[in-house]
Parts: sequence; structure tokens; C-alpha cells
Amino acid sequence: MAATIEGRSRELLEGKNFCLVTTLRKDGTPFDVITWVDVQDSRVLLNTAEGRSWPQNLRNDPRVWLVVPNMENPYEYVRLAGRVAEDTHEGADEHIDKLAKKYLGEDKYPFRQEGEVRVKIAIEPEQVQHVGQ
Amino acid sequence: MAATIEGRSRELLEGKNFCLVTTLRKDGTPFDVITWVDVQDSRVLLNTAEGRSWPQNLRNDPRVWLVVPNMENPYEYVRLAGRVAEDTHEGADEHIDKLAKKYLGEDKYPFRQEGEVRVKIAIEPEQVQHVGQ
Repeated sequence: MAATIEGRSRELLEGKNFCLVTTLRKDGTPFDVITWVDVQDSRVLLNTAEGRSWPQNLRNDPRVWLVVPNMENPYEYVRLAGRVAEDTHEGADEHIDKLAKKYLGEDKYPFRQEGEVRVKIAIEPEQVQHVGQ
Repeated sequence: MAATIEGRSRELLEGKNFCLVTTLRKDGTPFDVITWVDVQDSRVLLNTAEGRSWPQNLRNDPRVWLVVPNMENPYEYVRLAGRVAEDTHEGADEHIDKLAKKYLGEDKYPFRQEGEVRVKIAIEPEQVQHVGQ
């Protein structure tokens, strides 16, 4: 049931737009964060750090809902529903540097904390909907 | 258990920032939309139209989760959890005009559809969290 990310939806993910990530807590209530986002092949990539609540939510329930607005015109956005396909430390440091380049124009992610363990999360989209124009 | 909206959180709601609204479908999965937002006294105000899915979700489950980013710096946002306190047609047309003034600088909401019935939704916040800076 994988959905493809193409056209305007892909452009929004590739652009310097922020991603609203909705995960579910153990009690079934949604938890929203805003974060950077990236797309690679058929998957959406997010990056976080161990100890944060939302990757933990995803380990309990791998379903995830994303909204990525066109930051210059938030009447347009892409809405995705999917599942975690991969959750790894491998390549996660390089990946946060790539996101820092995309969003900040910096070669190295400047907010790294001592002892921080980065996590790269790949999401397989099941539904992709482009809203507005 | 009402929470107050004050300081920077209130400024973000008063500013020309968009609101991510998370509601729950009957099957418990979250549904996200981006919309205009307003604050009046202790309540958050949203405006929608009959026939849309998210106000219907709120009639099934009045719990709602909001994220309002600083659109000029989305590393800062306010996250609210609350419940629908009022869901009314009364004053809803005037209220969408007020939002059009805030977001578009127009006296009248320009996207009104023929036969559209506007709905004003007031939310009583139970948790208000300011994130980032």
C-alpha cells in the first residue's frame, strides 16, 4: 500500500519547508512537533535525538501523520500518512548535517549537544494528499 | 483545568500565524488541517464550514490539539491541548470576516461559497506550552 511522493507534494518536501509530525502517545492522544524534513527515493526522512518523546511514541506505534506547508503560502500543503520503515543511528549524524545544510546553509548541524545520539527515521508513505494551491 | 494563554503564547496566537489543528477521527487516527486562528479572552477561536470533516470529528470527540508556529521563525511555536467549549453558527460569518481582515487585510472573507454555512469553534485550552525561542 505504499504511496508515491511526486509532483507538487515532492517539491514541498524538497523545499525549505517545515514538517508537522503527529505521533500517538500510549494513551492514544496525538503529540505534534515541528521539525525538518527530507525526502529520499520513496521515503520521507526525519531526524531526531534519543530521549525525545516523539521517536519513543513511534516505537510504540509506528503510524505517523505529517503536514508540510508551503512556508511562503501555507494555504498549500501536503498531508501524508505512513509508517516507520527504518529507525536507525546509522548515518543519522551525516543526515542531520545534510538537513542543516538545507535549512540553515551550514555544513555542520550547529545545535548538537554533548552526548546526543541522533536518530534517522525513514517513513514509508501510505497516503499522500496535496491540499490547496 | 483551564489553562491561560499569556505572554509569548498569546502573541503567537494574535499574530498572523497559521494553526495546525489535530482532531481525531472515529477510528482514533489523527486528522490534521492548517487554518486561521484567533484568540479571545481565555479561548482559542477557529472558523470552518459545515460539511468539512474536522468539525465533524470534533462533534464526535471534542478534544483538540493545536500548534501555532511563529511563521517567521518556526523553531518557535505554541502547542495547546483543549476541548471544544462552543460550536455555533452564531457570529460565525462576522468572525470569518474578522479573520480575513487579520490574514488577508480584507474586510470581507473573499472565499465564501454559495450556500456555505460557517461554524465558529471556541476552544477551552487545558494545556499551553511554548516551545523554542
